[in-house]
Amino acid sequence: MPRDMGNNSAGRDPACQNPHPCRSLPADDAAQGASGMKGFGVHTSMWTMAWDRAGAERAVSACKALGFDFIEIALLSPDKVDTDHSRRLLDREAMPAVCSLGLPEGKRASSDPDAAIAFLTHAMDQCAAIGAQALTGVTYGGIGERTGLPPTERERDNVARVLGAAAAHARRLGIAFGIEPVNRYENHILNTGWQAVEMIEKIGADNIFIHLDTYHMNIEERGMALGILDAGPHLRYIHLSESDRGTPGEGNVRWDEVFGALQAVGFTGGMAMESFIDMPPEMSFGLSVWRPVAESRDVVLDRGLPFLRNKARQYRLWS
Amino acid sequence: MPRDMGNNSAGRDPACQNPHPCRSLPADDAAQGASGMKGFGVHTSMWTMAWDRAGAERAVSACKALGFDFIEIALLSPDKVDTDHSRRLLDREAMPAVCSLGLPEGKRASSDPDAAIAFLTHAMDQCAAIGAQALTGVTYGGIGERTGLPPTERERDNVARVLGAAAAHARRLGIAFGIEPVNRYENHILNTGWQAVEMIEKIGADNIFIHLDTYHMNIEERGMALGILDAGPHLRYIHLSESDRGTPGEGNVRWDEVFGALQAVGFTGGMAMESFIDMPPEMSFGLSVWRPVAESRDVVLDRGLPFLRNKARQYRLWS
Amino acid sequence: MPRDMGNNSAGRDPACQNPHPCRSLPADDAAQGASGMKGFGVHTSMWTMAWDRAGAERAVSACKALGFDFIEIALLSPDKVDTDHSRRLLDREAMPAVCSLGLPEGKRASSDPDAAIAFLTHAMDQCAAIGAQALTGVTYGGIGERTGLPPTERERDNVARVLGAAAAHARRLGIAFGIEPVNRYENHILNTGWQAVEMIEKIGADNIFIHLDTYHMNIEERGMALGILDAGPHLRYIHLSESDRGTPGEGNVRWDEVFGALQAVGFTGGMAMESFIDMPPEMSFGLSVWRPVAESRDVVLDRGLPFLRNKARQYRLWS
Amino acid sequence: MPRDMGNNSAGRDPACQNPHPCRSLPADDAAQGASGMKGFGVHTSMWTMAWDRAGAERAVSACKALGFDFIEIALLSPDKVDTDHSRRLLDREAMPAVCSLGLPEGKRASSDPDAAIAFLTHAMDQCAAIGAQALTGVTYGGIGERTGLPPTERERDNVARVLGAAAAHARRLGIAFGIEPVNRYENHILNTGWQAVEMIEKIGADNIFIHLDTYHMNIEERGMALGILDAGPHLRYIHLSESDRGTPGEGNVRWDEVFGALQAVGFTGGMAMESFIDMPPEMSFGLSVWRPVAESRDVVLDRGLPFLRNKARQYRLWS
Repeated sequence: MPRDMGNNSAGRDPACQNPHPCRSLPADDAAQGASGMKGFGVHTSMWTMAWDRAGAERAVSACKALGFDFIEIALLSPDKVDTDHSRRLLDREAMPAVCSLGLPEGKRASSDPDAAIAFLTHAMDQCAAIGAQALTGVTYGGIGERTGLPPTERERDNVARVLGAAAAHARRLGIAFGIEPVNRYENHILNTGWQAVEMIEKIGADNIFIHLDTYHMNIEERGMALGILDAGPHLRYIHLSESDRGTPGEGNVRWDEVFGALQAVGFTGGMAMESFIDMPPEMSFGLSVWRPVAESRDVVLDRGLPFLRNKARQYRLWS
Repeated sequence: MPRDMGNNSAGRDPACQNPHPCRSLPADDAAQGASGMKGFGVHTSMWTMAWDRAGAERAVSACKALGFDFIEIALLSPDKVDTDHSRRLLDREAMPAVCSLGLPEGKRASSDPDAAIAFLTHAMDQCAAIGAQALTGVTYGGIGERTGLPPTERERDNVARVLGAAAAHARRLGIAFGIEPVNRYENHILNTGWQAVEMIEKIGADNIFIHLDTYHMNIEERGMALGILDAGPHLRYIHLSESDRGTPGEGNVRWDEVFGALQAVGFTGGMAMESFIDMPPEMSFGLSVWRPVAESRDVVLDRGLPFLRNKARQYRLWS
Repeated sequence: MPRDMGNNSAGRDPACQNPHPCRSLPADDAAQGASGMKGFGVHTSMWTMAWDRAGAERAVSACKALGFDFIEIALLSPDKVDTDHSRRLLDREAMPAVCSLGLPEGKRASSDPDAAIAFLTHAMDQCAAIGAQALTGVTYGGIGERTGLPPTERERDNVARVLGAAAAHARRLGIAFGIEPVNRYENHILNTGWQAVEMIEKIGADNIFIHLDTYHMNIEERGMALGILDAGPHLRYIHLSESDRGTPGEGNVRWDEVFGALQAVGFTGGMAMESFIDMPPEMSFGLSVWRPVAESRDVVLDRGLPFLRNKARQYRLWS
Repeated sequence: MPRDMGNNSAGRDPACQNPHPCRSLPADDAAQGASGMKGFGVHTSMWTMAWDRAGAERAVSACKALGFDFIEIALLSPDKVDTDHSRRLLDREAMPAVCSLGLPEGKRASSDPDAAIAFLTHAMDQCAAIGAQALTGVTYGGIGERTGLPPTERERDNVARVLGAAAAHARRLGIAFGIEPVNRYENHILNTGWQAVEMIEKIGADNIFIHLDTYHMNIEERGMALGILDAGPHLRYIHLSESDRGTPGEGNVRWDEVFGALQAVGFTGGMAMESFIDMPPEMSFGLSVWRPVAESRDVVLDRGLPFLRNKARQYRLWS
């Protein structure tokens, strides 16, 4: 019996279910620059892949109307963002934001570390200018980056140097910085939660968080819970995405294992629904979505979103 | 990649899985009198329901041969046990033991608290005489006890008084004492992990542990993980039993949720396989198994036991 | 991609999902007297356990408003039903109905076959008078009936005789007649789909259908799909009930296995949501629900009902 | 209770489980040239990726010792196979074989149809020379083939022409011919069971079978059962591969849905375990396995193989 059955709390029925309150945000989160990276958010690919004025307004309005707690902006072209417009828009709607990206060709951490640092530094400046609270995603490489070989020590060293520099810049800006392991086809550097922990330990930075994604975990982790348990306290952000990137609740992801493990590790971070129903050509190859994976955006919002929210309620992660 | 990949450990591949060691037993367990209640055990109903000399010898030999870490003895008639024989047998085979029972008619905690205390006290003395490390099970009532109404405050008060007295006696004897919530049909007092926590808090004893059973959880808990998370640090023992009480791995229990949650809460207690393939008449009504739920004991041991052990390995709970 | 993506149907994308239409009702269903036993219905225990005028009106109005395709009336006291009122009410709302019951003490098929035949005959007459299309449930025994022993040959013979007579009466009345296997604690005669098939074959009647219930299947079947595959073409009705009889989608039932198997066997019968959140005392012992298993009726309707409907859509069983 | 409890069949307990016999092979299978493509097999990548004499002998011996019903040979370089040696080896061990492949660069059906036909024709001749019963796999394209766009009508036309020609050649040779949908990253032409059905219908050939793979289904199908139900009677072969291509039973594949659906569609074809624990460089990019996905081959065989066999037994698909 959930906490909101307030009228029963005086003479609480001894037979009822565990009335755990929702977990509250740890005190030190604000210090880490992500006071808004919590609750239920959504990736803006649902409404736009181009973060221009029109797309931004459409996406933020829709998020507001749907009661999302934050928005994730795909920062594919950081230099093209009208940061003043975005900041005013987010402020006006009181909508916290998280930015995400992958590194473009020629600016990949493994092979072009200096270019990668420059790119990330600029992207982070844009994040801060927008008022976003975090930069995350495949911040360590390209979406679709694969050499055909396991990551070499040199590649990993380069990635560590880039991420260390980026983390230092994030600290200066007061924003959070995350890394998202993705599946074996989208990148060969980091595929699992445990590999992300190893990378963080190699870097030695204490302000890099792990960002998991259920779509990738479904391919890479030995049980959804293990990925989450492996990431442990580093885990501060998760993409809730179905196994086919379609409507959450209507694929193969083992959602009870996901939410049970999130509750178990005391997760208090942001949960962002992600579904790719329309992809721009420049992302098609990396993401490789060749068919509509949901009937429509409305189906994702009308069926998938309530599914996720109810599961989060069942596991006492959201109210 | 598990710790036993010794040949790779020198130049460990940075890309491998989390090489968590098996969790070790907390230091204070010995103090609580259950140093042996860990690893993989089995309920002796697989070989005998009568703990007479012949049954005991058959069961202990079988457990030893199968590599079990401990044995759970069904202490249905505590006064009929040849405690000297059992102790010598267990000592000889170096087989730790846990005893379990349900309260007989006329000695139920809810309605006959004094008789229940006397019964439990005697049963615990027999446990200690055998050298068993714990008494657990439906120690708070009868298997099949139902009044047709939810538990009353008076019933719960009686149960609390009985369990408090039993816990005090357990402390004196240096053995551990557990309570096992069972499904709604087998008892109306405690059906969920959370109710067990509430009872422990009501009693105020710090040496009562919770003993869950996946068969009952499958009926009562809102997701297998929640029952385990609710029980939390009180959880020190679990029955691994399939949804039909047949062959583990071949029913409806969501085993990945069970083992993932056990890993998440840092479970270090005993895991006892339980399957009821032959029931004596005196237990039939309470347990209500009317048909063979497995083809044979061999099927349970050849298919169910490896299934459980491999799942425990996957989730790094056993090696 | 489902059939309702009308805007794409002209130039249908070759890459889309299987656009199977919803299965249509077999032609011979009307002949079997259950033309309305299809689609999504609900057990009236959500609104009332007493089928008096007030309860009936409340329940039928609610079902109508919620868009249910049919209603299941708990016919606990057949002789107390105001059949004229019920018939007018159901007619006015164009709401097909199914009645269900368990046999009362003293009228159980296994031990009191003649009394059982008389009871069922009368109950069926009342069903027909109401205009209901089927009588189903634990029509072969009591809810909570257990002798403490497996069913004897004599008990099974008695049950077969009763069900044969009832089936003959059903044929005369032009209504359908079903048997619902329930879990081991609620009855010892029929616990699985396969046992129900064996009983139907023993009787030799061709107008008895099997009515499964996911709550009971979760305890009794070796995999949800096997129960459905075993029942096979006999299966014409199913209770969709969660593992704790609470909110569908928030327990342990493996719903994907249920709906996948229903699609696989070409199920076209009725699917009735069932949740027991308030039980009258006379049913408490048999059903043994001792605590609120859902926060409220609204939670079941707002979260559980959409969950079931969306799963049925995903598996192309409902639109 | 499985069929092999022969000793109970005379006085069969009426309460037992459904004693379905194992499904027998349909009579027309021999006509389709795959009389041996049934039961439990294994992909030879467990022992060798190079089908040279030494690799072949090692693999066939191992398969024989492990009791496999057939062997799947990765025919990566058809022209390098010593067909006489292979045929004698398979004959001596009485081991039925299936060959599988993907089309090499420059010989892809979508872009180089004539080269693809020539390649497939030769590969099929080699299959026949070996005595293999089927050629299957990504016979319609390259492993890793993606243009960055959904398949065009021209690509699909080319593929249809190639597969039609290959099917005709297969008929002449008396071997079976299959197509295996793979995930979006490995090929953009066929990702789901339903797309494979559409392709077969487009070709109009009646001797092309569908070959599913649980690893790919886990990414592409909306529920494992739907992929199998969509493929329906075309499905004659399935790769049993875990979600990370590691140890079956220790990942995210929903095996009960897989085996339940196989039983539901009356599957009688071949089930081949597949695990990629060591990949040669030429396959790394397509398959993108960058880390050891299992501790060792022994773990796959000692834990994964019994898991699959027991699940197949539970669902009465194997004995």
